[in-house]
Amino acid sequence: MKIRLLFTYLFFISLHVSAQKGILVIQTDFGQKDAAVATMKGVAMQVSAQLRVFDLTHEIPPFNIWEAAYRLEQTAKYWPAGTVFVSVVDPGVGSERKSVVLKTKSGHYFVSPDNGTLTLVSQTLGIAAVREIDEKVNRLKGSADSYTFHGRDVYDYTGARLAAGVIKFEQVGKRLPDSVMRIPFQQPELLHGVINGNIPVLDIQYGNVWTNIPEKLLKEAGVHFGDMLKVTIWEDQTPVYRGILPFVKTFAEVAPQKEMCYVNSLLNLSIAINLGNFANQHHVGSGPEWRIEVMKN
Amino acid sequence: MKIRLLFTYLFFISLHVSAQKGILVIQTDFGQKDAAVATMKGVAMQVSAQLRVFDLTHEIPPFNIWEAAYRLEQTAKYWPAGTVFVSVVDPGVGSERKSVVLKTKSGHYFVSPDNGTLTLVSQTLGIAAVREIDEKVNRLKGSADSYTFHGRDVYDYTGARLAAGVIKFEQVGKRLPDSVMRIPFQQPELLHGVINGNIPVLDIQYGNVWTNIPEKLLKEAGVHFGDMLKVTIWEDQTPVYRGILPFVKTFAEVAPQKEMCYVNSLLNLSIAINLGNFANQHHVGSGPEWRIEVMKN
Amino acid sequence: MKIRLLFTYLFFISLHVSAQKGILVIQTDFGQKDAAVATMKGVAMQVSAQLRVFDLTHEIPPFNIWEAAYRLEQTAKYWPAGTVFVSVVDPGVGSERKSVVLKTKSGHYFVSPDNGTLTLVSQTLGIAAVREIDEKVNRLKGSADSYTFHGRDVYDYTGARLAAGVIKFEQVGKRLPDSVMRIPFQQPELLHGVINGNIPVLDIQYGNVWTNIPEKLLKEAGVHFGDMLKVTIWEDQTPVYRGILPFVKTFAEVAPQKEMCYVNSLLNLSIAINLGNFANQHHVGSGPEWRIEVMKN
Repeated sequence: MKIRLLFTYLFFISLHVSAQKGILVIQTDFGQKDAAVATMKGVAMQVSAQLRVFDLTHEIPPFNIWEAAYRLEQTAKYWPAGTVFVSVVDPGVGSERKSVVLKTKSGHYFVSPDNGTLTLVSQTLGIAAVREIDEKVNRLKGSADSYTFHGRDVYDYTGARLAAGVIKFEQVGKRLPDSVMRIPFQQPELLHGVINGNIPVLDIQYGNVWTNIPEKLLKEAGVHFGDMLKVTIWEDQTPVYRGILPFVKTFAEVAPQKEMCYVNSLLNLSIAINLGNFANQHHVGSGPEWRIEVMKN
Repeated sequence: MKIRLLFTYLFFISLHVSAQKGILVIQTDFGQKDAAVATMKGVAMQVSAQLRVFDLTHEIPPFNIWEAAYRLEQTAKYWPAGTVFVSVVDPGVGSERKSVVLKTKSGHYFVSPDNGTLTLVSQTLGIAAVREIDEKVNRLKGSADSYTFHGRDVYDYTGARLAAGVIKFEQVGKRLPDSVMRIPFQQPELLHGVINGNIPVLDIQYGNVWTNIPEKLLKEAGVHFGDMLKVTIWEDQTPVYRGILPFVKTFAEVAPQKEMCYVNSLLNLSIAINLGNFANQHHVGSGPEWRIEVMKN
Repeated sequence: MKIRLLFTYLFFISLHVSAQKGILVIQTDFGQKDAAVATMKGVAMQVSAQLRVFDLTHEIPPFNIWEAAYRLEQTAKYWPAGTVFVSVVDPGVGSERKSVVLKTKSGHYFVSPDNGTLTLVSQTLGIAAVREIDEKVNRLKGSADSYTFHGRDVYDYTGARLAAGVIKFEQVGKRLPDSVMRIPFQQPELLHGVINGNIPVLDIQYGNVWTNIPEKLLKEAGVHFGDMLKVTIWEDQTPVYRGILPFVKTFAEVAPQKEMCYVNSLLNLSIAINLGNFANQHHVGSGPEWRIEVMKN
């Protein structure tokens, strides 16, 4: 009798321990002034109170798919394999874009409209498989009358069920070809000593300009700490900034208010003013249409 | 001997598993620039490190009880029964308003000053019982000298204890009559083919105008997708907007920058400009004093 | 055989239960518009998925060490002993400031650059010991090429490992003398009936002015509720405000828009306009250079 009780205990405990693995990370353009994000978390708690729910950011500028793509790329690889990301930046809600779950070769999952949001993680983490969410199965019960909050009823609900182990990846829906919609942008490349790249995003809090040019490419171009670099920044065909800047290891190496190039925490070339705001001062923005050219002076 | 050790293990585990059910959701008008919200979470962790603590929002405009009421209403039903909500929007702190816990028929708990914050959830989720917080029992130890942070010392502390199962609902304090303070506003109603309702809140991130008119009432009035609707919006006695708009299923059905009516994620009539900001463009606000009139054109 | 299985279960469960104690509280000046904070949480989840991770605030004004110090002080004592705080406000990243973990006599841990951030908690909670983070051991694997995101690679990683019990305090690195860098400011003092103090911070959401003058010192000076107080506020040598205000228990005791003194939730003297914004109206700021003088009228 005692033994039966004991095994009943153990059964519930084992359930509990396995569910604990579920990590859900949510990104939206909803802001946090209203209850939309909280509602998504409530739905996740209904799926499983054992889920660990985190915010990526909810301050993606409304409808800015490119920035959503970049934020996923910036953080995903620092999370354990098995983490499920839900991203809801969806200007086309109700239109014909597909709702998908991307599994990357790194073992991360991304639940999102297939509208370009997966441009960067699909490239850097690699596509293991893409499945289309079958809304007949993976949709919050009682939500069929709601036409507009796919973030809650489909993406969040599916992501929570996947993270909690209620469904397996195979149960998301039918498998699609191994590709996602990609937004075109300047890939980093070295040509005749000139490095070209994209400005995917600004480090907004400080006004630093981040590029997609990896430190490795700088090394290939023979650039070393202490070198002076000739930098040009373009918005489409318009040059916005030209300057010659030192390439330094840390901010502390230049005087306050001085411009500099450095390697940021993602190991990419970046540009800043020490204790200042480079982007504001030089009206530099970011996105697929922003391009940077760098060469040794 | 081994068996005793084993049962000691099991005892602690069973404690642990039962405490895990506790979900605490916090709403305030404190913002998140200072440490007030974090302090409330610290107190919750002192009550039980097993609690799962979530933010509803902390961006309620200071002292805006109506918006606090609306945010609770917007999210509560999406959380599991047993969830405890703590809401601290309290312009009357230190005055004679009562501190209460409302249990709704849906099984949710709301810890709040009884100042109108419970207007909407008490109506839509139903009152099961209301109890007044007995501060002699349910107040953070050592906080008796503090006169102004009831949010931390009384509401949060009581909510955390309730969520963690440290106290039962009956131990909150003495039972009050089954009613709470309610702010008057235009209930949704259909009269001679004209639908009247309230604008409880804006979908601020996008500037959409949300009403309290349920889809069901539109159907009763014979309104169908594809119809043109004549809409008038009033602030008290002043007409602020008049227009004739299509009633559509999804944003994608109208051209960018076009006005439209749709059913929002709460299944209520809403008004928007596709990829634009209706509220800003037409200076429409929200609150108990905002009214909307809709009829088929 | 069953018994072996059972003990295997119990082994994993015991691991699980002990890891559950880990509470990690993160403060930065990063904002939440990008993925930096989320990345720190991802690293924490890699260390242990059992950690309970909280935000103190991420809205410290960029590089404002004083405010970082104050926010820690404001909240720390409300968290259980054993809580690990990680604070990353680090204008000197890459310079010679040390990376330390402070253990206070209250049993809390603070992981931070030693740049003044620990000024207040070291004073009020007491220094038990200070250790310098040994980056050879306590640094995220694979991050050695990254020069600038110590917040993620060193502070957060070390804090997560400490909170999860992966390392003990003694394994942080070598012990330093029992002191931290302190920013000078006006300590609260009573001299010939005049009380002097500092304005460490504003209650920004409401515009209330908080001082470091404890209620106890007011009592020593013979100040009682109902008294009128003569108040002068200085920024360095410049007087910014002079007034005579009632000392009241609650906001509700004065009419709307009236100025008043009260005791805030930290049991310190504070100044406000009931339902108004004192700081904005009188251009009062905060920081080590702000001083207040109070006496009975």
